[in-house]
Amino acid sequence: MKRYVIIVAGGKGTRMGSELPKQFLPLAGKPILAHTLDNFYRFDPSMELVVVLPDSQQEYWKQLCLQYHIAIPHHIASGGETRFHSVRNGLALLPDEGVVAIHDGVRPLVAHPVIERCFEVAREQGGAIPTLPLTDSLRQILPDGSSRAEERSRFVTVQTPQTFRCCEIKRAYELPYRDSFTDDASVYEAAGYTPRLVEGNRENLKITHPIDLALAEILLTR
Amino acid sequence: MKRYVIIVAGGKGTRMGSELPKQFLPLAGKPILAHTLDNFYRFDPSMELVVVLPDSQQEYWKQLCLQYHIAIPHHIASGGETRFHSVRNGLALLPDEGVVAIHDGVRPLVAHPVIERCFEVAREQGGAIPTLPLTDSLRQILPDGSSRAEERSRFVTVQTPQTFRCCEIKRAYELPYRDSFTDDASVYEAAGYTPRLVEGNRENLKITHPIDLALAEILLTR
Repeated sequence: MKRYVIIVAGGKGTRMGSELPKQFLPLAGKPILAHTLDNFYRFDPSMELVVVLPDSQQEYWKQLCLQYHIAIPHHIASGGETRFHSVRNGLALLPDEGVVAIHDGVRPLVAHPVIERCFEVAREQGGAIPTLPLTDSLRQILPDGSSRAEERSRFVTVQTPQTFRCCEIKRAYELPYRDSFTDDASVYEAAGYTPRLVEGNRENLKITHPIDLALAEILLTR
Repeated sequence: MKRYVIIVAGGKGTRMGSELPKQFLPLAGKPILAHTLDNFYRFDPSMELVVVLPDSQQEYWKQLCLQYHIAIPHHIASGGETRFHSVRNGLALLPDEGVVAIHDGVRPLVAHPVIERCFEVAREQGGAIPTLPLTDSLRQILPDGSSRAEERSRFVTVQTPQTFRCCEIKRAYELPYRDSFTDDASVYEAAGYTPRLVEGNRENLKITHPIDLALAEILLTR
């Protein structure tokens, strides 16, 4: 079954304290997004790769590809108003046959066995998302502003790539947008499907704050 | 109002892939626990510090203090069967007057403004816990093994120091042990009190996995 990857990069970079959208920040000698693209290409060079970027950033990305000699073939789709719209634009380029991994552009460190597990489980069962147990305690904020301790063993944090049969996730993304669509699995579920949880890898951090960038630098260069 | 700190160090180190309990692992030239102790001492040298350690580790810790010239005055209390029992043993050394910060021995990087906020809010309102928003998506595992997307903005992760008026937290720790006591705030709440949430700092990681140690090393040496 043919494998596709959609890499979503719509970041504005405000939390990183930088003008540059975070997917373009330099990390171990090249932009974060180039590492993410390269990681999937090394996993399987025969996969088709789609990068979703806001229209206003596409020229800049092409310049970066020239500047950093990024020769990995990939399609570019237009970023939308929200992540949901961006993913939908990426999915529009894919056929109904096959399996697609949808991945955050700022997660350059997903391990290859995790990608493999996601594709395998999605092929067999429809949808797979990589998860990890929490290391800190968890509290829920209640509507009245108070809070309540939650048993952290009953929760997992969710990473990407969230991976699905193309036909199912494309059908799910025909739903009208809702604010509760925080990730691809929530869209998939809203269409009546059930994603399976697979084990993620702790190094697969989403580069969101400056300390994440420092950590990714070590992990990539050690 | 007099300030106390209880530093809880009961770790066995299994998740770190090490025989050495994780609080003793070397970090930027000295044991993690020594950094944690030093951080509170630098915050306010007049505070009374209590370190809770399993009896079997106390001699080793004293040797490390000699070896690394750790001259910070501190009391030692006996670690118990669970974290709950360890904290209770530490609290037994304190009077009813004052405010106490209860802190994980493997969190050497709590920021001083966070410690100050916790003490201030605890003094004024009884109890304070430092929290952070989640950066990854969150799912709840349901009893039947399925899972459900949760809105991550309704949750926070909880760090330490969890800080309380001594009289209130000591009364709370007279409760019989329950498995649901995952942190000090959950014990405090079970006694009928309400802790306030204050803003934590992202660098205040709990050193649990090898990559946390690598990150702490950068943060301490930069």
